[in-house]
Amino acid sequence: MSLVALLTDMNRQSEGPWLDALRLAMPEETIRPLADIEADRLGHVEVAVVANPQPSELSRLPNLRWIHSLWAGVEKLVREIGPTGVPIVRLVDPELARAMAEAVLAWTYYLFRDMPAYARQQREGVWKPLPYRHPSNVTVGILGLGELGTAAGLKLREAGFATLGWSRTPKNVAGIESFAGEAGLAAMLSRSDILVCLLPLTPETNGLLDSARLGTLPAGASLINFGRGPILNEGDLLGLFDAGHLAHAVLDVFRTEPLPAGDPLWRHERVTVLPHVSGPTDRKTASRIVAANIRAFRATGAIPATVDIGRGY
Amino acid sequence: MSLVALLTDMNRQSEGPWLDALRLAMPEETIRPLADIEADRLGHVEVAVVANPQPSELSRLPNLRWIHSLWAGVEKLVREIGPTGVPIVRLVDPELARAMAEAVLAWTYYLFRDMPAYARQQREGVWKPLPYRHPSNVTVGILGLGELGTAAGLKLREAGFATLGWSRTPKNVAGIESFAGEAGLAAMLSRSDILVCLLPLTPETNGLLDSARLGTLPAGASLINFGRGPILNEGDLLGLFDAGHLAHAVLDVFRTEPLPAGDPLWRHERVTVLPHVSGPTDRKTASRIVAANIRAFRATGAIPATVDIGRGY
Repeated sequence: MSLVALLTDMNRQSEGPWLDALRLAMPEETIRPLADIEADRLGHVEVAVVANPQPSELSRLPNLRWIHSLWAGVEKLVREIGPTGVPIVRLVDPELARAMAEAVLAWTYYLFRDMPAYARQQREGVWKPLPYRHPSNVTVGILGLGELGTAAGLKLREAGFATLGWSRTPKNVAGIESFAGEAGLAAMLSRSDILVCLLPLTPETNGLLDSARLGTLPAGASLINFGRGPILNEGDLLGLFDAGHLAHAVLDVFRTEPLPAGDPLWRHERVTVLPHVSGPTDRKTASRIVAANIRAFRATGAIPATVDIGRGY
Repeated sequence: MSLVALLTDMNRQSEGPWLDALRLAMPEETIRPLADIEADRLGHVEVAVVANPQPSELSRLPNLRWIHSLWAGVEKLVREIGPTGVPIVRLVDPELARAMAEAVLAWTYYLFRDMPAYARQQREGVWKPLPYRHPSNVTVGILGLGELGTAAGLKLREAGFATLGWSRTPKNVAGIESFAGEAGLAAMLSRSDILVCLLPLTPETNGLLDSARLGTLPAGASLINFGRGPILNEGDLLGLFDAGHLAHAVLDVFRTEPLPAGDPLWRHERVTVLPHVSGPTDRKTASRIVAANIRAFRATGAIPATVDIGRGY
């Protein structure tokens, strides 16, 4: 009898609700944490559902055909598992795109409506209305126009912001002025009052947001990084604050997570630190998507669309 | 030759851009600050455009037919000028409704996405994701379903929140569950995770949000007051924080504005103090609306729809 193995870096208590949600979404499957599968049944596992698994654990499954990530970001998996050739399916959940687009709008409003400045004024007991600009006079540039970036861009557009988008290859999204390539990146950055990063982490995006590139943003611009921590050079960001060039940064992802105690970002008055909460995974919708992919595989033997290991996502 | 008088509590420097905008919107009129009108021409003024005018100054205009407020909130005017019988026209600007609805959504997101809690965690160096709820599981109750409340409600609905609305008289707005009267108020409050106040200040709304009524909000609820300061009993609000009943309040209006130095609201960690910026007046659109009203009056002699002095708005 076939089994589905669950491999995560969660403790049993956190893993429990995932196991429940996955079992509810596919009652026809037998789903077990890897540790609960008897040695003589490891060969029955063709599919593993994973969230930050230990690569050595995966190698205990001799007949593993493919793995399904519960997260949309798979750069760590690709780095560790990719070379073994086991195909990786990443989560593409419209609910994740909705929640992430909502977060982009929420924190864009946070910057646009001067919430950090008003918080500063409140601490200092200062009553001072700041000038209001119509959203059509504020330009938001989005790095990454995949599922998440497109959903975020459409939401910003709907809210009335002038919306630009940049991607590796040219994209065509109604209402979003699109840019591609290195020249396109420079053109978009020079116009973005608020820059939103939703890029995946790949060798090309690692360190992309450095002094040189962030320095081309208009003076007084702000940054939202909801993509991956290493895309941003955190030291360069602090340098641009020191130079008075940037107004604020909302960071949800970091080179090291959790952000280490004592990191200067924690106490910088121009940085809002979030504990990786911009795009919360919805267990119910995610489990249904994993179930549908596994069901299709059982029915046809076809592995769902997988991550392009060369591209990295 | 007829004149339009401008009476504000602004200094010349702040008044200047208003004068420019009004003159641009109605080049056919002669618009002057009251102080610049010669004594023998005061009788030529039939219309005054005002923003917090001194009542004694208005009485210098013997032939004044009506006054146009540049603000939507006219409770002070009604109190001071109402009894004299000079009709008051208040600003009803769709751009104000748009900007206010945007502010309601922005600060609802602020509360919904736990920004105050994450700011607290950042100050304490705590990395702790808080549970995410789908907006459909969060109920926002709006006090006031006039132009502003309706625009805000529709925007919240569009963002996926369960949206309730309360008004003096029953209203029917698609997608917003509506309540009226004292019993309706109790019913709505008991269900509102976030309560948004957009009421005008009248004898009936003065002190409406007291211990008894705020105490019926669900435990952990939050308040946004973008209406008028005296509607909220600020001392009662602090008592409900002490009792641990409410989570947070975003206050843009206060009993006394600017909020006096030393007021405990300034330094309360559960209060976000804003300097009356939720519904910024757009000089350009406001001036066009004033111009259209004055133009109609010149053409027909009819005074535009005015404030109901008995009702107070």
